[in-house]
Amino acid sequence: MFRRNYSSELLEEAVEQLSSLPGIGRRTALRLALHLLGQPRENVEQFASSIVRLRRDIRHCPVCGMISDGGQCPVCGDSRRDATVVCVVESIRDVLSIENTGQYNGLYHILGGIISPIDGVGPGDLNIQALSDRISQGVIEEVVMALSTSMEGETTAYYIYKQISRFPVKVTAIARGVGFGDDLEYTDELTLGRSIANRQIFQP
Amino acid sequence: MFRRNYSSELLEEAVEQLSSLPGIGRRTALRLALHLLGQPRENVEQFASSIVRLRRDIRHCPVCGMISDGGQCPVCGDSRRDATVVCVVESIRDVLSIENTGQYNGLYHILGGIISPIDGVGPGDLNIQALSDRISQGVIEEVVMALSTSMEGETTAYYIYKQISRFPVKVTAIARGVGFGDDLEYTDELTLGRSIANRQIFQP
Repeated sequence: MFRRNYSSELLEEAVEQLSSLPGIGRRTALRLALHLLGQPRENVEQFASSIVRLRRDIRHCPVCGMISDGGQCPVCGDSRRDATVVCVVESIRDVLSIENTGQYNGLYHILGGIISPIDGVGPGDLNIQALSDRISQGVIEEVVMALSTSMEGETTAYYIYKQISRFPVKVTAIARGVGFGDDLEYTDELTLGRSIANRQIFQP
Repeated sequence: MFRRNYSSELLEEAVEQLSSLPGIGRRTALRLALHLLGQPRENVEQFASSIVRLRRDIRHCPVCGMISDGGQCPVCGDSRRDATVVCVVESIRDVLSIENTGQYNGLYHILGGIISPIDGVGPGDLNIQALSDRISQGVIEEVVMALSTSMEGETTAYYIYKQISRFPVKVTAIARGVGFGDDLEYTDELTLGRSIANRQIFQP
């Protein structure tokens, strides 16, 4: 490991800041800092400014909680999307992942986390009440749970299920099973077991 | 891969900028951007400002080319260092690597690259003349070549050797051999061959 002796406090500080990013150690941070040092000054200023503006100017969609540059997000604002289906996810990244599949045409609802007593996150800290409010407007017919299968994810899904069971909506969950390209040999028993129990008609 | 559809131009741009860093793909850039989005605004501004200041305010040591916050670098300015030995390296990173070993007490000379006709880098683009000037002052007694063993590194070392051979200095090179912890089985033939040829007295 590199010690804290870079012959420059400026470099020291930049490395310190860069290594605060997730997955970036001090060694990588040093490489990034030295890379930036070799770039034209305008580029580096543009780099920094894009980050400051991201944090300062970004807004959240008042409907689903997705990021937007102001007002409704493009998904909620798109009249071609099926407004009768809403998919409940934990984070912005989950929305981006599902959008990338191109297989979903409904709307989203971002919780902003999952219930986790250990981390001090209760139902009140999440965007759950807003989901009930959305459903109470009577347009939504199906709520798709797309939360993780961890203890916290299951707890959160169950809590939401109880909250919305008073509404006449169908509650579904994304399918669990053996992933494409996965070896059966290396698939955990729970997944494989569920995958066999929920087998579907073979479609050649 | 994530497509370019993040529902926000600000996020789009930040991801674009972050993925311009070496070793950072778009997926990682997105993760970093969303991480920054979750941080307090002051922290993000401090992050960006440390990078801008790094690029804007950093200076180079007029003697060796190392980065400094102004004037001579701490190594050149340290009277306890042996000013009769100078180690020739390609980059700032190499200096940091050697400093971290704690095994070297001389000074450095950073070339700022290596001779590489393919990349259009000739001797005139490197900090070589300054090395001759330093040696001509008569204090330096030994020049240690610590360049890579690539074709370009060897060419550069040879060029420098020819340039400084008119001075009464000893020219040395860092030892090549099998690294600590390396298996002989996986060591390339050239390294292993050199390592046997240059065998040293066993010191238990």
